[in-house]
Amino acid sequence: MLTAIKGNILEALSLDTLGVHPHSYLVLEDGRVAGIYLTLPETMAEAQVTDFGDALILQSFSDMHLHGPQYEYMGTGMDRPLLEWLEAYAFPTEARYADPVYAREKYRTLAHDLIQNGTTRVCMFSSRHTDGTLILMEELEKAGITGYVGKVNMDRDAPDYLRETTEESQKETLRWLEGCKGFTKVKPILTPRFAPSCSDELLTFLGKLKAERDLPVQSHLSENLGEIALVAKLFPDCGQYWEVYDKYGLFDSRTLMAHCVHSDARERAAMSRKGVWPVHCASSNNSLMSGISPVADMLREGQAICLGSDVSGGTTLSMLRTMANSISAAKDRGSMTWDYDQAISIEQAYYMATSAGQTFFGLKLGFPEGELLHAIVLDDTGLPKLPSLTLRDRLLRAAYRLDDRHITAVYSEGIRRR
Amino acid sequence: MLTAIKGNILEALSLDTLGVHPHSYLVLEDGRVAGIYLTLPETMAEAQVTDFGDALILQSFSDMHLHGPQYEYMGTGMDRPLLEWLEAYAFPTEARYADPVYAREKYRTLAHDLIQNGTTRVCMFSSRHTDGTLILMEELEKAGITGYVGKVNMDRDAPDYLRETTEESQKETLRWLEGCKGFTKVKPILTPRFAPSCSDELLTFLGKLKAERDLPVQSHLSENLGEIALVAKLFPDCGQYWEVYDKYGLFDSRTLMAHCVHSDARERAAMSRKGVWPVHCASSNNSLMSGISPVADMLREGQAICLGSDVSGGTTLSMLRTMANSISAAKDRGSMTWDYDQAISIEQAYYMATSAGQTFFGLKLGFPEGELLHAIVLDDTGLPKLPSLTLRDRLLRAAYRLDDRHITAVYSEGIRRR
Repeated sequence: MLTAIKGNILEALSLDTLGVHPHSYLVLEDGRVAGIYLTLPETMAEAQVTDFGDALILQSFSDMHLHGPQYEYMGTGMDRPLLEWLEAYAFPTEARYADPVYAREKYRTLAHDLIQNGTTRVCMFSSRHTDGTLILMEELEKAGITGYVGKVNMDRDAPDYLRETTEESQKETLRWLEGCKGFTKVKPILTPRFAPSCSDELLTFLGKLKAERDLPVQSHLSENLGEIALVAKLFPDCGQYWEVYDKYGLFDSRTLMAHCVHSDARERAAMSRKGVWPVHCASSNNSLMSGISPVADMLREGQAICLGSDVSGGTTLSMLRTMANSISAAKDRGSMTWDYDQAISIEQAYYMATSAGQTFFGLKLGFPEGELLHAIVLDDTGLPKLPSLTLRDRLLRAAYRLDDRHITAVYSEGIRRR
Repeated sequence: MLTAIKGNILEALSLDTLGVHPHSYLVLEDGRVAGIYLTLPETMAEAQVTDFGDALILQSFSDMHLHGPQYEYMGTGMDRPLLEWLEAYAFPTEARYADPVYAREKYRTLAHDLIQNGTTRVCMFSSRHTDGTLILMEELEKAGITGYVGKVNMDRDAPDYLRETTEESQKETLRWLEGCKGFTKVKPILTPRFAPSCSDELLTFLGKLKAERDLPVQSHLSENLGEIALVAKLFPDCGQYWEVYDKYGLFDSRTLMAHCVHSDARERAAMSRKGVWPVHCASSNNSLMSGISPVADMLREGQAICLGSDVSGGTTLSMLRTMANSISAAKDRGSMTWDYDQAISIEQAYYMATSAGQTFFGLKLGFPEGELLHAIVLDDTGLPKLPSLTLRDRLLRAAYRLDDRHITAVYSEGIRRR
């Protein structure tokens, strides 16, 4: 069946190239992209058109780092030091996800709010709880969200009530992977919380599991200096933080590493060499005063950076806001270092929020032909109509000014979800 | 007539003191604050109570620096260098405010949106146009907003189509002040755009006018390094930027100076000595890469800092967001200078967004008894109810997460305006 949506279509075709299709048709065949046309070709004349007028049609967002169980206290206690914040909010709340009823209710809200905000692809940390993690995957899939979710592994460096034994962590990981078999849209990703929270034995196990089952991996890397010092202490045989993951076979082209704020040239060279994907989390790096990631430099190096909301170190689920926060953080870094080349463009922010994630999932850039549609309609027509405003200008303005109210349609896997 | 509003009342009683009144009554006599009570005193038992349940009742906001004619292009072209941005957007748009019909329509929208966002007091730049400025004042007053508005003076350093002659600027300023006589809530403030845009002759005139008529003054100070260099070139007899204003009698305890990002110890000492009010504009300083103001240091020095949205160098009209942006900017400054004491608290942000402005207008802190009520109701009850969340925690969370949707009532001058 042929359908089409019509509007001002914007694609992130490369880090610096915005594909701009004013008042065009995005034609779908059974929900899969058949092409973008300024006028409908004769062979497609019978397509049922949904006309969004002068609104913007964008790729939907890929949020490549967030913690499902942390959503409920987003924005809370952000003025506490990290460890105190973890003890006051993160750990006690996470413990409640042992309860499937509690988990179901909270994760349903999260899935709903992701769609409202135009996020249709995620890489998400769950808690350590197997059943809670499967529930999270169910709720995401039901809401129409695709991507990867990971049961967290943590057999040390956590409060007793939350920590697993090494054996338990291994057993539960296997049980979780068994439970993942019924899923078609949300897949498992191995998730050692971060190096310090996993024993050598557990990391060895995860590395083997990854190799055997060809699984992707997500974790944290060089977020703040205290953490880097802790890793150096716990893994004295590893010269740098990344070497811990590398040593256990958890550092390759299917690995997402959140933050990388303090990754130096050597660590960044290792990421490039191995094809690791850094996930930039501007809001959380700000809230927790971790530092400002040198994103512009890393993009120039060719790092495959994606964006993450990092709920709830981050204070917003909105990837529009996350784009704006990334631009703002880069500007703050620039003005504090007297280096205007630290700034990033709206093209780069949009690319990192959309196409970069798509490529991690094995998809082509922009609206790839033959793939099920993932798109949002962003209605900025209530904003002033300025003379000479380009579609690119409108995208930048939207990142600053619009929110979920203005996302008037969300398509995921070819189906309209909002 | 006795009325009361009931809810969780939060007052900014000092930079570091939040007055907290859980589930209390804010009692009004003919719209004037009669007191805050946990239970209604017997003498006030007949008060008509509007119960806002578990919502927060805050002081409404004072936006102490913004440009009325710039609102329509807020968020547009923020990646252009300042001069290019001024030429592409600021100046051509500002020229349109010569047309009273155009000005009326745009300023009505602005006034409406200010109330929607809970801003009831402003210090605002208009354009150079006398009639447009009076229209802005009318629209603000009609919407229930109080404060100061200034016709901009600029007889140099602007495009021909926008610049006034010195004579014209003087004549029009006098005509404007004549026109201001009918206003009761919105008063005139002298507004040399910034030192470089005014000739010595015009500054001399404004200084005399200020002295004769006891008028307040607003302008810009040390926003970015290019501007500081320009001032040094144009006013070679003045050792520092502030000395220009001081030389002409425009730098005293009724003077607001926006930005002060690069004010050094000597300039800051002068501000303290003279009682000048710095207005911190975090969003605009970020957007234009002006730098990050050392707000925490300035607060420790006892500077009377207020907050400004600085629309449209700033990208939001929301003072809630402006509070959050101020907190974020201070954190970025802290993490880039390895100085955690650069951070500011939610108490400080709320104080700067409310009580600091009130004191500039000659009012006491918090909800002063005997004064007409200025307040907003901020309904955060849709957010998760976390155990052990204090009202202070909820205020911080609100700054990060809430927007004009959650402002469910706005009182200005004792009257409910939303």
